[in-house]
Amino acid sequence: MKVGFIGAGSMGSGMARNLIKAGHSVTVYNRTKSRAEALKEFGAQVAETPADAAKNAEALITMLADDTAVEGVILGPGDVIHSLPSGSVQISMSTISVDLSRRLLVAHNQAGQHYIAAPVFGRPDAAAAGKLFIVAGGESGQINRCKPLFDAMGQKTFEVGDVPASNVVKIAGNFLITTVIEGLAESFTLARKAGVDPRTFLDVMIGSLFDAPVYRNYGALIASAKFDPPGFKLKLGLKDNRLALALADEVTAPLPTANLIHDRFVTGMAQGLENSDWAAIAKISYQAAGL
Amino acid sequence: MKVGFIGAGSMGSGMARNLIKAGHSVTVYNRTKSRAEALKEFGAQVAETPADAAKNAEALITMLADDTAVEGVILGPGDVIHSLPSGSVQISMSTISVDLSRRLLVAHNQAGQHYIAAPVFGRPDAAAAGKLFIVAGGESGQINRCKPLFDAMGQKTFEVGDVPASNVVKIAGNFLITTVIEGLAESFTLARKAGVDPRTFLDVMIGSLFDAPVYRNYGALIASAKFDPPGFKLKLGLKDNRLALALADEVTAPLPTANLIHDRFVTGMAQGLENSDWAAIAKISYQAAGL
Amino acid sequence: MKVGFIGAGSMGSGMARNLIKAGHSVTVYNRTKSRAEALKEFGAQVAETPADAAKNAEALITMLADDTAVEGVILGPGDVIHSLPSGSVQISMSTISVDLSRRLLVAHNQAGQHYIAAPVFGRPDAAAAGKLFIVAGGESGQINRCKPLFDAMGQKTFEVGDVPASNVVKIAGNFLITTVIEGLAESFTLARKAGVDPRTFLDVMIGSLFDAPVYRNYGALIASAKFDPPGFKLKLGLKDNRLALALADEVTAPLPTANLIHDRFVTGMAQGLENSDWAAIAKISYQAAGL
Amino acid sequence: MKVGFIGAGSMGSGMARNLIKAGHSVTVYNRTKSRAEALKEFGAQVAETPADAAKNAEALITMLADDTAVEGVILGPGDVIHSLPSGSVQISMSTISVDLSRRLLVAHNQAGQHYIAAPVFGRPDAAAAGKLFIVAGGESGQINRCKPLFDAMGQKTFEVGDVPASNVVKIAGNFLITTVIEGLAESFTLARKAGVDPRTFLDVMIGSLFDAPVYRNYGALIASAKFDPPGFKLKLGLKDNRLALALADEVTAPLPTANLIHDRFVTGMAQGLENSDWAAIAKISYQAAGL
Repeated sequence: MKVGFIGAGSMGSGMARNLIKAGHSVTVYNRTKSRAEALKEFGAQVAETPADAAKNAEALITMLADDTAVEGVILGPGDVIHSLPSGSVQISMSTISVDLSRRLLVAHNQAGQHYIAAPVFGRPDAAAAGKLFIVAGGESGQINRCKPLFDAMGQKTFEVGDVPASNVVKIAGNFLITTVIEGLAESFTLARKAGVDPRTFLDVMIGSLFDAPVYRNYGALIASAKFDPPGFKLKLGLKDNRLALALADEVTAPLPTANLIHDRFVTGMAQGLENSDWAAIAKISYQAAGL
Repeated sequence: MKVGFIGAGSMGSGMARNLIKAGHSVTVYNRTKSRAEALKEFGAQVAETPADAAKNAEALITMLADDTAVEGVILGPGDVIHSLPSGSVQISMSTISVDLSRRLLVAHNQAGQHYIAAPVFGRPDAAAAGKLFIVAGGESGQINRCKPLFDAMGQKTFEVGDVPASNVVKIAGNFLITTVIEGLAESFTLARKAGVDPRTFLDVMIGSLFDAPVYRNYGALIASAKFDPPGFKLKLGLKDNRLALALADEVTAPLPTANLIHDRFVTGMAQGLENSDWAAIAKISYQAAGL
Repeated sequence: MKVGFIGAGSMGSGMARNLIKAGHSVTVYNRTKSRAEALKEFGAQVAETPADAAKNAEALITMLADDTAVEGVILGPGDVIHSLPSGSVQISMSTISVDLSRRLLVAHNQAGQHYIAAPVFGRPDAAAAGKLFIVAGGESGQINRCKPLFDAMGQKTFEVGDVPASNVVKIAGNFLITTVIEGLAESFTLARKAGVDPRTFLDVMIGSLFDAPVYRNYGALIASAKFDPPGFKLKLGLKDNRLALALADEVTAPLPTANLIHDRFVTGMAQGLENSDWAAIAKISYQAAGL
Repeated sequence: MKVGFIGAGSMGSGMARNLIKAGHSVTVYNRTKSRAEALKEFGAQVAETPADAAKNAEALITMLADDTAVEGVILGPGDVIHSLPSGSVQISMSTISVDLSRRLLVAHNQAGQHYIAAPVFGRPDAAAAGKLFIVAGGESGQINRCKPLFDAMGQKTFEVGDVPASNVVKIAGNFLITTVIEGLAESFTLARKAGVDPRTFLDVMIGSLFDAPVYRNYGALIASAKFDPPGFKLKLGLKDNRLALALADEVTAPLPTANLIHDRFVTGMAQGLENSDWAAIAKISYQAAGL
């Protein structure tokens, strides 16, 4: 397939490479051009503008930092929506708000284009290895059409319903991951203060009821208390926490733990941890306990 | 081995049966005598008093509801500690406080007896199936001596260090389970209010990063919102939450999530949910959101 | 002075009447026209559009529900900013965001107009009685110029510095009021469950260290548990809570109590209390405790 | 009246002096004897043991740190309850638990003695100035009998009902004070980060709706961020917070703000602030925000 790919950050670079490896023709745009050019040696073409990346694409993938970036590229001045061929499909793979995803659906449909939302679970290493988990929402026909792309980038694709459903799952899922981080942070704080090595505690938990990647990965990270270099930056974690809180506000759902974790992230920002891994909110728990 | 077994509740009954099945001679005491007598058909002997259960035992297991029950039976009037033969070992398998566990160690040692703390993870079905996870703390020699008993009752035994360490791991572990329950409760609340079936959300999470028994079991329970009959009662969940908070207070560890969950349990008590499953704290999240 | 007055709600009506009573010439605009016309008998002129209210004004007062309303009226299509005479002053008296207040300052200055922010403390009865507390920020000269207006509407005017300072004080002040409501709600819940009449408790507190209007007013309200009709609606309380949280996010200040109160308001919305008094968050505390 | 006085700490010393000044005969016991002897020059007699202080007393006042101290002195070995003359009255003026207060009532009545609970609001300066607020619970006859003592120590006595009622009011009241401290801490944090001097903010609040001693005193303290020397130590604040939480647990009342403040106190302990003023929990808010 002819694929336009916008956003060659730590996630997007790996994803684009895996598309190329699978035989697709990929044109990459990235604001900082050097990151797109680094993909040339793998066979990517480099676009000068987002519109360039879109103009001949059958499928256009966006993998950008936040709502503002996605909205700017798709709906902003010199926008993609006027360059993308009729009948093509935009695949929004970033973690964006339900509200923006709904508006993108309307805009693309009005332009005679298709839109599916397909955010992913997994960190940069999973993106590089083609091991992402992809959560796809939108018309079944379009999801099937994009299946070869998903298979190149991920180990599994979940089809969850219409467009905003996949965004809801992604937002609620990232929130669930933060409850794991906070749960580990507090239980490790308790264990450490009570004289038990968090690794000992973690071994028991993983060896019994908690044998899942999310506990193995974050457990090791938080037990070691090494939060740099980051897999996923704290400031982006705050962004996703805000998406959960904004959605909760919109649908009138009180989320006390999400609020508590919001304070952890804000405290982290105030303590200069914005570029550490988002698991560094555990540091705040440790410090409050005098560890 | 000659085993005294005190406490034939929903956990203890299954554990005692598995000991008998493995060929051990088991004398059971239970306050409500009928529950002990129900074990006769499997080959148990029934003791009239805790002291009776203790007097010829090589190993005496306690599996009781809380600190008060354990302290009453071991250190109270007509107490076990004077009936237990010298050289024998008490195995404390309930979830009790670090403080009581330390005092039991001292008391048994002064009486020429041994003491190990070996609390378990697993619900009544795991106890019945001999599939518990056992966390053992205390002298290695004594833990080895009790290994055949542990193998009969559990699928895995973790050795974590000295006596209170296993109690710390159990208390922190139960707290970690409550963070899972609360995390699921809030993320399901968000998903439901945003129009996504919690089972769809759960399938994605378990199918990707959360593939662990604790998420599978509690996820299904909370998605179905059926909290009766209970596997583990909410009022006992509150008791264990209090153990975590008491330990946290003792070692000066602030635990915001544990506090928040404390409020969930207290609200559950005030709403008449004390005999529902402890996962029923999810009901409070659902109700607050108007679900 | 020739005054344009936009927003004749439960607060604005009283304020406009007091301006008229003090001899000022007042032209009122309100979206629901009947509310403006009700002021005719007191001597007000009625404007057809916001621009009409602005066009001959020396001072233009806005007293509207939220940022959206103020921004729409001042900066929106058919906007006030092009009708307001050069040299005149806009007095923004609603509770609005720091961000909007800053943008209004810039816009008015670019149009050769002045802008001061002067939000108020006090409920509709205080507005009707000319007993508001006014918090004014902006150029001292302009604040002095508006002093006769403030004296007609309020019992006291505080000058707190530049433009956003008064908005900060108002937002933080409303947050402080919500901590009073929540503090009373929880301490009354505790007293009631422990068998003590909240009025008895309140009498002691007011009779000793808490002898302030905010405790007298909200204490009586919450002790009686009568939250209808509202003095200030819960849904507006949520709006102001969001202003505090947005400001906190912007300046990186973690505010755990504000988050907790956010959940109270959201729960109130989900329970259908949006048009009750904002003190009705106490009802949620009472209900959680089974009262 | 012949008064026994147990506990000559920073509060008790001032109270005892005011009793002497009013013409009562006061025999003081204090564990650290020098503090009792310092009262000799004002006319106090010094007792060697608590029983000595009690043996000829018509009224025995206790003003001790916590439940353990009061229970030890009254019900412990060499205890006061056997020395206090029949028909005399114990006045418990410390902040103690509802549970202990109930047990003291029973014990004194069984010994043919009377018991009233009369905890106080006010810090050491108010104790020294005879300006305490006294909250009395118990038999009206006994409260009247003690009225001359209360008048010597306080500016006002509230009669609130039976024995535990006054303890409930005191516990809930101290909790309400902590909500003031936390509310000021967070709103000052917000104001400071948003560029507004907390004194400016405080002036507006006190000048409008918050004109009460509790806001004036704690407002000045927290705005200045000088928490040493303490008026009331943080570790005692934690003790009182625990009394509120224990009472809440007993009566099944969820108190989210009390939990949040518990974490502030525990964090304060972990940060070495135990001997600073309890308002130092504001420091934790400031630090979390990077101030």
